[in-house]
Amino acid sequence: MLASHYMAHILVCNDDGIFAPGIKALVEAVKEFGTLTVVAPDSPQSGMGHAISVGKPIWAGVSHDFGPDVKAWETSGTPADCIKIATGQLMDKRPDLIVSGINHGSNSSISVFYSGTMSAAIEGVLEGIPSIGFSLLDYSMEADFAAAKQVVRTIVRRALAHRMPENVALNVNIPKLPAAELRGIKITRQSAGRWVEEFDKRKDPYGRDYYWLMGQFDLQDDGQDTDGWALRNGYVSVCPVQIDVTAHHALARLNNWEMNEIEG
Amino acid sequence: MLASHYMAHILVCNDDGIFAPGIKALVEAVKEFGTLTVVAPDSPQSGMGHAISVGKPIWAGVSHDFGPDVKAWETSGTPADCIKIATGQLMDKRPDLIVSGINHGSNSSISVFYSGTMSAAIEGVLEGIPSIGFSLLDYSMEADFAAAKQVVRTIVRRALAHRMPENVALNVNIPKLPAAELRGIKITRQSAGRWVEEFDKRKDPYGRDYYWLMGQFDLQDDGQDTDGWALRNGYVSVCPVQIDVTAHHALARLNNWEMNEIEG
Repeated sequence: MLASHYMAHILVCNDDGIFAPGIKALVEAVKEFGTLTVVAPDSPQSGMGHAISVGKPIWAGVSHDFGPDVKAWETSGTPADCIKIATGQLMDKRPDLIVSGINHGSNSSISVFYSGTMSAAIEGVLEGIPSIGFSLLDYSMEADFAAAKQVVRTIVRRALAHRMPENVALNVNIPKLPAAELRGIKITRQSAGRWVEEFDKRKDPYGRDYYWLMGQFDLQDDGQDTDGWALRNGYVSVCPVQIDVTAHHALARLNNWEMNEIEG
Repeated sequence: MLASHYMAHILVCNDDGIFAPGIKALVEAVKEFGTLTVVAPDSPQSGMGHAISVGKPIWAGVSHDFGPDVKAWETSGTPADCIKIATGQLMDKRPDLIVSGINHGSNSSISVFYSGTMSAAIEGVLEGIPSIGFSLLDYSMEADFAAAKQVVRTIVRRALAHRMPENVALNVNIPKLPAAELRGIKITRQSAGRWVEEFDKRKDPYGRDYYWLMGQFDLQDDGQDTDGWALRNGYVSVCPVQIDVTAHHALARLNNWEMNEIEG
């Protein structure tokens, strides 16, 4: 077993809100590694993507939910706002590591784009701080986080002992299985997939049309090196996510478009 | 000059809202290429990132703002919601191209993560539809879009004549210059940069702390192949953005973390 080199200062965030069981589990999982600060939304923020509060204020108040040893704030902002206000205003010193979650539900494949959990981790990396998002494939508020907490400790221990790759956040997804049935941890790439949307159309009492967005996820990539494959086969998936989203492979092709002149 | 091969069906979206001058300019710029449908937010959605409406309904009503030839809806949703409801519910057939913008303000470098304009384009690509986001480096509601409209036409003409790279959205940023002073169009990569946040702390009448988020952008990458360099030097930047965000270069290093066993 690896030893952590020092007592780290860890910032904890999530997107399900400060009252979600998942963030309590995450705090319990990482508290052995050092000093914790929690800054999390005061209400659920699932699907918030990388939204930030532009042109509107953010309330932030002290929370006593995590006991006397953990400084904590709840904010009216998004997960990305929470990271910004934590590092820019509330914390005395920069954290060594940011952990986000444990999310109630998967953030694998293209769900990384919609995920508030991962936006907190990506915001951390945009600020140069090593960051990891954790998600358990169980939407229930009564989810059992026992195995997930073991996974968190296994991974955080390494993140503190090794140097994290620069400009990369880790997207960790954990199957809904007891610890004894987890087959291990796999480093993966992001599966290709699509959300196939359906809309439930209704009329409000004022005669206006409104819609409920419903979606089915359609996995389109069965490679054994993907997060989708790992999760379906009982493995924890650790997918590194980068903040340079340039499609470098497309540059040459676009240079053949002959756009030197602006035509109008 | 390239001819468009056919009359295309183009979906137009934005994040500044359906009443913003930028989306009017975009509709005027692309209407010569075919049939247009507009589905845009009914209020400003800057900084919404890739947020979607989870667990709350989306209102969508017909808009007559773009004349009798353009089908248009305004919705209570985010830019990503607009694309989902347009393709999944409101449009009879799948669009050939999605254009988003013209945004009032830059979406270069890491602003791509916060941008509602680019989230609409990325959502299009997640659904397999060629998509382009356009942004003018002028936040003013009185911005002059004359040169930007020429840029839009130059690029859309090529996007329709050539095949767009798959799984790639284009992030087009346009300097605030008259057409005669634009030096051309450059294919670029995303600059590294950071937002350095400052918070203006206040107390509300109930004694609660609230904060206004203020930021300064700090460009950290001066390469002549970057979007930042292009824009500072009078060029339009066309940066391809990919939806596979896996840090492929980090996989080998993470495989050295020896995480086969879950320790707990």
